[in-house]
Amino acid sequence: MEELKKEVWEANMLLPKYGLVTFTWGNVSGIDREKGLFVIKPSGVDYDVMKPEDMVVMDMEGNRVEGHYKPSSDTPTHLELYKAFPEIGGIIHTHSSYATSWAQAGRSIPCYGTTHADYMYGDIPCMRCLNKEEIEEAYEANTGHLIVNYFKESGRNPMDVPACLCKNHGPFAWGKDPHEAVHNAVVLEEVAKMAYRAEVIEPRIQPAPQELQDKHYYRKHGANAYYGQDTK
Amino acid sequence: MEELKKEVWEANMLLPKYGLVTFTWGNVSGIDREKGLFVIKPSGVDYDVMKPEDMVVMDMEGNRVEGHYKPSSDTPTHLELYKAFPEIGGIIHTHSSYATSWAQAGRSIPCYGTTHADYMYGDIPCMRCLNKEEIEEAYEANTGHLIVNYFKESGRNPMDVPACLCKNHGPFAWGKDPHEAVHNAVVLEEVAKMAYRAEVIEPRIQPAPQELQDKHYYRKHGANAYYGQDTK
Amino acid sequence: MEELKKEVWEANMLLPKYGLVTFTWGNVSGIDREKGLFVIKPSGVDYDVMKPEDMVVMDMEGNRVEGHYKPSSDTPTHLELYKAFPEIGGIIHTHSSYATSWAQAGRSIPCYGTTHADYMYGDIPCMRCLNKEEIEEAYEANTGHLIVNYFKESGRNPMDVPACLCKNHGPFAWGKDPHEAVHNAVVLEEVAKMAYRAEVIEPRIQPAPQELQDKHYYRKHGANAYYGQDTK
Amino acid sequence: MEELKKEVWEANMLLPKYGLVTFTWGNVSGIDREKGLFVIKPSGVDYDVMKPEDMVVMDMEGNRVEGHYKPSSDTPTHLELYKAFPEIGGIIHTHSSYATSWAQAGRSIPCYGTTHADYMYGDIPCMRCLNKEEIEEAYEANTGHLIVNYFKESGRNPMDVPACLCKNHGPFAWGKDPHEAVHNAVVLEEVAKMAYRAEVIEPRIQPAPQELQDKHYYRKHGANAYYGQDTK
Repeated sequence: MEELKKEVWEANMLLPKYGLVTFTWGNVSGIDREKGLFVIKPSGVDYDVMKPEDMVVMDMEGNRVEGHYKPSSDTPTHLELYKAFPEIGGIIHTHSSYATSWAQAGRSIPCYGTTHADYMYGDIPCMRCLNKEEIEEAYEANTGHLIVNYFKESGRNPMDVPACLCKNHGPFAWGKDPHEAVHNAVVLEEVAKMAYRAEVIEPRIQPAPQELQDKHYYRKHGANAYYGQDTK
Repeated sequence: MEELKKEVWEANMLLPKYGLVTFTWGNVSGIDREKGLFVIKPSGVDYDVMKPEDMVVMDMEGNRVEGHYKPSSDTPTHLELYKAFPEIGGIIHTHSSYATSWAQAGRSIPCYGTTHADYMYGDIPCMRCLNKEEIEEAYEANTGHLIVNYFKESGRNPMDVPACLCKNHGPFAWGKDPHEAVHNAVVLEEVAKMAYRAEVIEPRIQPAPQELQDKHYYRKHGANAYYGQDTK
Repeated sequence: MEELKKEVWEANMLLPKYGLVTFTWGNVSGIDREKGLFVIKPSGVDYDVMKPEDMVVMDMEGNRVEGHYKPSSDTPTHLELYKAFPEIGGIIHTHSSYATSWAQAGRSIPCYGTTHADYMYGDIPCMRCLNKEEIEEAYEANTGHLIVNYFKESGRNPMDVPACLCKNHGPFAWGKDPHEAVHNAVVLEEVAKMAYRAEVIEPRIQPAPQELQDKHYYRKHGANAYYGQDTK
Repeated sequence: MEELKKEVWEANMLLPKYGLVTFTWGNVSGIDREKGLFVIKPSGVDYDVMKPEDMVVMDMEGNRVEGHYKPSSDTPTHLELYKAFPEIGGIIHTHSSYATSWAQAGRSIPCYGTTHADYMYGDIPCMRCLNKEEIEEAYEANTGHLIVNYFKESGRNPMDVPACLCKNHGPFAWGKDPHEAVHNAVVLEEVAKMAYRAEVIEPRIQPAPQELQDKHYYRKHGANAYYGQDTK
C-alpha cells in the first residue's frame, strides 16, 4: 500500500502543477483491485503541506482502514465508481475553471475537434441535478449512482468517455491509474476551454464529423492505434 | 499589536501571490477587538517594499494611533464594517479582475454552483451606486454605511455572505481574521470567473437548486459540518 | 544622456515583466527637454539581449544623434507627441492584448469604474483610421498628427487622458517620465480587460456616474489629492 | 544532420516556453533541401525528457532514415508541404488554444489589425473538413494535399500566409526554418486571441483597410522593408 499511497499523493500534487486546483478543491484516488482497497486524499488538507503518509486507505464498504485524517468528503462518490467500473484504477474530482463553468451551465461538452476526439469518444455528458431527496439522504453516494446509471443506461463505455460533469457542481474524470485520471482531467479542461471559445466565434457551430472523431479516437486507442511509440 | 501587524502584513502579501492585485490596488486590515484597535495597509505603498512595521494602527474613531505612513484611503470603509459587524476580524478590498467586472456591470453574482455555495450562502450582492451627495461628503465612510445598511435591511448574515460588490468600483470581502478575508476574496474571484463563463455557455442559466446550495454550505459550516478535519 | 538611456532601457524591460509584450512588439522612449533629445528603443531587437547602450538618441528633427542601431520604426510618432505635448516625459507603444482588441474593434473604452477613473479622466479615445494618402506618405508621423489633433480639437488634456488607441493598430500611452508611461500602459490593459468582461456580463451597461469618476480621479490627482503618501 | 536535429529539437522545446503546447500536442520539423531529408519530433514523447538524438530523420518518400523512435503521426502532412512549397524550411503543428478554437469553429481569421498584417498578408484561411474517404484512406497525407491545393487554387503565396487552420483540428504554420515556423505559430495564437476578443467587443467589425494591411506587411517584408536592423 505504501507504493499506492505515494502514487496517489504524486497524482494529487499534479493538480496545482497543471492549474486545476484552488486551495483544496480537488481530490485524486487510486485503487488496488487485488487487495480491495483504495487510497484517497484527506479532506481539506493544504497541498503544500500534504505528504504521502497523509493519504487515507479505505475498504470497499467505505470504512477507513488506515490514516490519521478523515478522507475526502467525496469518498462515497469514488467508491461507487470503483464498484461499478471494474476497469478504472484512478479517479479525480476538481473544480477546474472551464469544466466547472460548463457544469454550472448544465450542458454537455460537444466534440468540436480532434483535441477532444484524441482522448474522449463523443460528448462529455453533463448529469442531471440530484433531486431534494437524493441530496439530503446520501448526497455523495447518490452522485456516484447518478454517474453509474448514466453509463449503464446510455450504453457508453466509461473507458471511452473517461469524464463527466455533475450539474451545478463540477467534473469527475478517471483512468486506468491515478496518473491517467489526472491526465484526462487536464484534457477535459483544455477541451472545455476550446469549446467555450469556439461557440463564441461561431454560434452555429456543429460537432466534428463522426468520421473525423472516429479517425482520431481510434488512431490513439484500440487494436489499430498508431500514435505514440510501441509500448506493448 | 506587533503580532497583528505581522498578520495583516502577511495577509496583504498574499494578494500578489494569488494574483488579486495590480500595483497597489488592494488593502487588507485586521482588528484586535479587546484593544479596540485595527491595523491596515498604508496608502499607495508598493507590495515589494512593504514591511510589517509599515502597517498603520487605527482606533475606532478613525484616528491614527501608530505608524509613519498614512493609512489606506479606504480606511473609513473598513472602520464602518468593523463597527457594524462584530464577528468579523479581517477585511479586504481589491480590484481583482472578474469581481470588479461584475461590479462595473452592476450585477450581483448568482449562485450557479457548489464552488460558490461551499463558501457563500446565496448571491454575492452588488450595492447601488452612492449618490452625488454621498460621494462628495464622506465617500469612503458612506461606502461602509451602504454595505452595512444592505445587510441590516436584507436580514442576511455577513458571516454567511462574506463579500459584496460596490457598483462601478470593486469587491469588499471579510472573515474571522485577515487570512480568512483574503481566502474569501480568492473564492469570490474564482466564483466571479466561473459565473461569467457559465452565462456565456448558457444564457438561460438558472441559479443552483436551493437544496444543493443548502447541502454544500452546511456541509462546511455550522453544527453539522463534516468537510475537512475536526479542529474543535 | 547615459542616465536617460538607462532609464529608458529599464522602462522597456518592464514590458515583458508586466506581460505587455510578445517578441519585440513594443517600445518606450524618454525625453530630456533641456537638451532637446529623446532616447528610444532600437527597432526589432530582442528584449532578452537588449542593453542600455543599445538605446538610440534622437534630436527633435528626427535625426539619430547617437547609437549603433536604427531607432524603432514608430519613432516619428513619438517625436510628434513630444513636440505637441510639452508636459510628457515618456511614451510607450505596445500591442498588449486587450487594448489592441479594442483598437481592432475601433471603439473607445468607456469609463466603467474606479479602476479606470483613478488614472484616466473620461473614456480612452480610439482615433479614426488614417486614410490611404496619410498611410502612404508618412505613416508614422501622421499617426502622431492624428493623436495630436484629437487632443487639440477635443480640448482634452493629455495629462488627464494619458493613453489612446489607434484604430486597427494598438495603444499609445504616456506620462511624466518613461516609468509612468509604462505604468499607464499597464493600467490601460487592466481597464481594457475589465471593460470587455463588464460588457459581456451586462450588455446594457452605462459609464460610471460622472460624480464617481470625478471623486476617484481627483482623489489621486490635483491640488486636493489625498491618496498615497505626501511626497511634496 | 546533427546540426539540423539540434535545431529542430530546440524549436520543439520553444513550444512549452511559449505556452503553445499541452502534453505532447505539437510537433516541429525542419528540412535540409540539399540532402533531401527532413527531421521531425518523435510521436508522443514528453517534452521534458526529449533530447536532440530522439529526433527522427525522414527522406522525401516518407521513409525513416535514422532514429530509434517512430516519427510524429503528422509526418505525412509535413512531407506534402515540403514537397509542394520549395521555399519553406520548417513546419509546426500545434493545438494552441485560440487558433484551435477558430479551427473548431471552422472560420478563417480576418485581418483585423497590424499585429496580424505585420506577419501575415490577408486572412488566415480555414480549410474545409476532409470527407469520409479522404479521412479513411490516408488522413495525414490528405491533410497536406488539402493545404497544398488551397494555396494552388487561391493563388496565395505560402510565404506571405505562413499559417492555416484545419477545420475541427488545429493550425499548421511554417517559415524559412524551424525557428521561424515557431515564431509564426506564436503570432498566429496572439492574432487568434485578439480577433476573438475584437469580435466580442464589436460584432459589426470589419477587416483593417487594405492600405493599412499593405503598409504594415511591406514595412517588414520585401524590397522596401524598413523595420528592424539591416541584416543583409
